[in-house]
Amino acid sequence: MTVEYPVNKRNKVRQLREKGRYDKDTVHRILDAGLVAQVAFIEAGNPVVVPMIYGRDGEIVYLHGARKARVIRMVEASASICLNVTLLDGIVLARSAFNSSMNYRSVTVFGTPSLVEGNAEKLRAMKIISEHLMPGRWDELRAPHEKEVKMTGVIAVSIDSASAKVSTGMPVDEPDDYAIPVWAGVLPLTSKLQSLQDDDRLLPEAKASAAVRALQDRVL
Amino acid sequence: MTVEYPVNKRNKVRQLREKGRYDKDTVHRILDAGLVAQVAFIEAGNPVVVPMIYGRDGEIVYLHGARKARVIRMVEASASICLNVTLLDGIVLARSAFNSSMNYRSVTVFGTPSLVEGNAEKLRAMKIISEHLMPGRWDELRAPHEKEVKMTGVIAVSIDSASAKVSTGMPVDEPDDYAIPVWAGVLPLTSKLQSLQDDDRLLPEAKASAAVRALQDRVL
Repeated sequence: MTVEYPVNKRNKVRQLREKGRYDKDTVHRILDAGLVAQVAFIEAGNPVVVPMIYGRDGEIVYLHGARKARVIRMVEASASICLNVTLLDGIVLARSAFNSSMNYRSVTVFGTPSLVEGNAEKLRAMKIISEHLMPGRWDELRAPHEKEVKMTGVIAVSIDSASAKVSTGMPVDEPDDYAIPVWAGVLPLTSKLQSLQDDDRLLPEAKASAAVRALQDRVL
Repeated sequence: MTVEYPVNKRNKVRQLREKGRYDKDTVHRILDAGLVAQVAFIEAGNPVVVPMIYGRDGEIVYLHGARKARVIRMVEASASICLNVTLLDGIVLARSAFNSSMNYRSVTVFGTPSLVEGNAEKLRAMKIISEHLMPGRWDELRAPHEKEVKMTGVIAVSIDSASAKVSTGMPVDEPDDYAIPVWAGVLPLTSKLQSLQDDDRLLPEAKASAAVRALQDRVL
């Protein structure tokens, strides 16, 4: 069964509606593919957007930063925030500038933020964020020092509503324009993790684990 | 001579200050390397962030969308907007979760938006956006129809202040952690334009121009 987010004024896709998706599977899949979310909040009456690493657990998106960072204080104080994760998949070269565009996977989340408190809950959220970026790495690293947990501010954003917008495939041109003998098509854009580069101060016995090696060559 | 944006409450980099840059060269270079800006505005008291294609001309960032689109109406009505362009360059795998992070080039612009009016001015801005995404393409395509120009809403964002944040290189670990025999280093992330894919309805005589072919294999 497809479970969908309810459509309301905030998450309704208005432009290119046929590209809009409200099912949780699509929204979750794009959130899980991205590495950085663009988080918008209001500071002194003005909009601000900040890129942040994140992780997802069910209907919660976790964000973190320095406990005293403006972004953590602001997001904590916000009744509502909006975040977007966009993965670019290519340039769509149509037969007119008007119909040229991009292919992408994009998700917008409207949510209610709350500060995560308590050592165990914070550690759990920090692990979720770490595992999102570097699956398998958390258990290979030393446990965070108590001071590090204290210095970290963690925000849980509960997803109130969300929508995805997915654009794929070839240009759609005006009927008359197909007779113009100009090249048209798609130029794919690929974001790919490459090969591991050793730190300069690596101990000779410190080899990359299977989990770390598995991060290589991943396409976002 | 290095020209810098004035540092004020809005654009001041507070976390990891040593990564902050205020010189126009760095800000412009990152804006010119990115393809999509995350644009934040306020709608009915709530923050909203929307990914948008853009182009830059000096100290103006141009955005566009359907004339009647919410984003164009909202941005037009805003006294101030914030936009961020972030390019991800890799995952930094430190010896602790706390010091693990990403390498990136990021720029945040605070600006005053205004609606671009008049056919010639709109066309000029539309060309700047098109050339940002697809250099050399504008002159190869038919001129936009008058109706298309009318249907397009163009916003000029005059850069009031901006800052960049650039993170490169290997992890910086706690002094004690260098004795832990765990692998550490960097996993680069590369976003690259691939090879052209022909549209299904391409006319046999429509070959990709030199400008279009030059878009291939570009690393963002």
